[in-house]
Amino acid sequence: MIKVYNSARNKEDLYNSLMERQIEDVDLGNTVLQIVEKVKNEGDKALAYYSKKFDNASLENFLVSEIEIENAFKKVDLELVKSLKKAKMNIESFHSRQLKKSDIYKKDNEDVILGRILRPIEKVGIYIPGGSASYPSTVLMSAVPAKIAGVDEIVMISPPDNNGAISDEILAAAKIAGVDKIYKIGGAHGIAALSYGTESVDKVSKIVGPGNIYVTLAKKFVSGIVGIDMIAGPSEIVVVADKWANPKYIAADMLSQAEHDERASAILITDCGILGRRVVEELEIQISKLDKKDTVRKSLEEYGKIIVADSISEAIDIVNIISPEHLELLTVDAFEIYKKVKNAGAIFIGEYSPEPVGDYFAGTNHILPTCATARYSSGLSVEDFMKKSSLVYFGKSALFEAKEDIIRIAEAEGLTAHGNAIRIRFEEE
Amino acid sequence: MIKVYNSARNKEDLYNSLMERQIEDVDLGNTVLQIVEKVKNEGDKALAYYSKKFDNASLENFLVSEIEIENAFKKVDLELVKSLKKAKMNIESFHSRQLKKSDIYKKDNEDVILGRILRPIEKVGIYIPGGSASYPSTVLMSAVPAKIAGVDEIVMISPPDNNGAISDEILAAAKIAGVDKIYKIGGAHGIAALSYGTESVDKVSKIVGPGNIYVTLAKKFVSGIVGIDMIAGPSEIVVVADKWANPKYIAADMLSQAEHDERASAILITDCGILGRRVVEELEIQISKLDKKDTVRKSLEEYGKIIVADSISEAIDIVNIISPEHLELLTVDAFEIYKKVKNAGAIFIGEYSPEPVGDYFAGTNHILPTCATARYSSGLSVEDFMKKSSLVYFGKSALFEAKEDIIRIAEAEGLTAHGNAIRIRFEEE
Repeated sequence: MIKVYNSARNKEDLYNSLMERQIEDVDLGNTVLQIVEKVKNEGDKALAYYSKKFDNASLENFLVSEIEIENAFKKVDLELVKSLKKAKMNIESFHSRQLKKSDIYKKDNEDVILGRILRPIEKVGIYIPGGSASYPSTVLMSAVPAKIAGVDEIVMISPPDNNGAISDEILAAAKIAGVDKIYKIGGAHGIAALSYGTESVDKVSKIVGPGNIYVTLAKKFVSGIVGIDMIAGPSEIVVVADKWANPKYIAADMLSQAEHDERASAILITDCGILGRRVVEELEIQISKLDKKDTVRKSLEEYGKIIVADSISEAIDIVNIISPEHLELLTVDAFEIYKKVKNAGAIFIGEYSPEPVGDYFAGTNHILPTCATARYSSGLSVEDFMKKSSLVYFGKSALFEAKEDIIRIAEAEGLTAHGNAIRIRFEEE
Repeated sequence: MIKVYNSARNKEDLYNSLMERQIEDVDLGNTVLQIVEKVKNEGDKALAYYSKKFDNASLENFLVSEIEIENAFKKVDLELVKSLKKAKMNIESFHSRQLKKSDIYKKDNEDVILGRILRPIEKVGIYIPGGSASYPSTVLMSAVPAKIAGVDEIVMISPPDNNGAISDEILAAAKIAGVDKIYKIGGAHGIAALSYGTESVDKVSKIVGPGNIYVTLAKKFVSGIVGIDMIAGPSEIVVVADKWANPKYIAADMLSQAEHDERASAILITDCGILGRRVVEELEIQISKLDKKDTVRKSLEEYGKIIVADSISEAIDIVNIISPEHLELLTVDAFEIYKKVKNAGAIFIGEYSPEPVGDYFAGTNHILPTCATARYSSGLSVEDFMKKSSLVYFGKSALFEAKEDIIRIAEAEGLTAHGNAIRIRFEEE
């Protein structure tokens, strides 16, 4: 079922299999561009059209009312509410450490003050997937860091079911997280509404949160009109394990990734061929007990891998090529080995830190870079909801001191008016 | 020439004039997409084709040799080299404060370790415009923060002139900044080469730096394949001034912005109608002395504005709508007023801090958010060259403690394999 690669036997085959996963679909791109343009031009009318077309929902009013939220909250299992509140506390605790202050300082012995001023983004939109995948945890992961940053208004959109409703759990999570407004709108049309505004939807400055390929492509199109957090693809896990690791745990963790999506990817890299074989056996045993057997099988067949590497050191080299969203280190010296990891969204250490701990409870963010974008980007954080302005003050003596250097560079660049802006300040009246 | 708006006389007209500038050009978009695809598919062959087509340069080898760099360096005015070195020191000094450390900590009384690990991006590309605008200062602004972040390899590309050469000043600045490799490639084809790699150009993980509309659109297309710093548009300044400000200085500063580009925007907002009129007069006087008269006139006519606001407080409200790249505060209490500014790339305070101080010398970055993107984004910084991985360690007792909450949320989301990954760790052997 799952493919097994052996580095010692065929290195070339192995490394060729590590080709990056990329998000690109030009045909769908044109469809999404049309959706975005239609919402931009026709506003609410286009939203109603696409809600009917894609979500089979007949809506006149997209805003979720206070009463709907209260009713949803009452219907949700009280124990689940408690668990979500605990998760929220942990997310707050972890993310609060990311809140940085403005830095304004006087340069030594100079008539110069410089700085960076940090400010929250005023209005952000969060996208929460709906339909088959209803993830209240993602509401917390998006909204809590925005709250900590001090965002004035958090607007959430999520696609309605064919009764025109968002799930009770998602509405309850939005209430717990302190979301300000909720609209029943999904897909590329939802992203367009947040970007350009419509009669009923105010535009925001930045949109965060995961979505399907329509949502992802729409985010890419509107980037520059609004800010976006990332271009997200299907979820991934890489488990690095040595011979001491428990194959049952490894298989369970790989399956927890594979159940997300047929395009999700679960990869084991080990220096122990016997462990590799035992994980293959365990996968078969455990799949038979799962709800989402078909999804899991397709994911493992298409995107799953067992890689037997020469050493744990080679395993980490391979990790740095794959640059996975999630990385589990199930090796005896994991607290040393993680230091060699260059590219990974989140690193889970040891046998009692399976990836769902991070999805739900540790407090770290579960909106993480996929498709090898961990090479250059990071999970969602408080910083994503803030921006910086630099601050420059030069007094007269400081400018006098710097004047010749500034004019020289400006003129070397052919920008004489730049030089003139300095000169004019020292001309005789 | 420049349009004058009076808030007291026609508020609606004024606020309608503040429509955001946006970067969008679908027709050109398709052209750029074709260029990107051709480079992706044909590599160096396509690079040679587009270098001939767009830069009129016949090149077989795109890499700038060590000897070319040495020769260029020798030809540059020694005083300019000194000025660039001073500028570099100031950029280092300012940006070094942005370098953050990893944060790994044990949670109170719990068997839990959490953290964020900061790592430099391994390989970045910097784009430096060429042709009529040769900006050595931009080389420093791009490369110095990357160096401070600890980037392994900095690859610079810049379009060649029709002799197939990059200007001596840019090569000298690259040497001063410590750029590792330089290619004579510009435009959308250059961005594509850095994103996908070709026979002679290695691909990078992130591309930063300003460029024309081709470069900007190409960066948007490749975003997700590589990281990009921002979607940049033409340069902008807003000057906020009260009756005490010097109209000569204001006019000079507006002109220094307008000379960049016909699409650059220079705006004065003042609470003093007399000052407004005097600035109009000064603009006319000073334009006549400038090298780039035509550019400046077109910019002022099309994108320039003098706005007479009811008060400085309204002026700042207008600033927060415009969200300018550069903001100068020429008012008596500027050190109080800046605190009300929500959206601006860089803020310059007082009459001896004209914007060219920030372009060249203060040490703050001059690669700043344009077209109202300061609502949600920031100037280039050391953070743009780093990424964060989160770290999660739960011991057995901590996982035992958290187990029911994790399973409850996972199952509410229909993710039974996620719950199973927790349960299996506490099953009897």
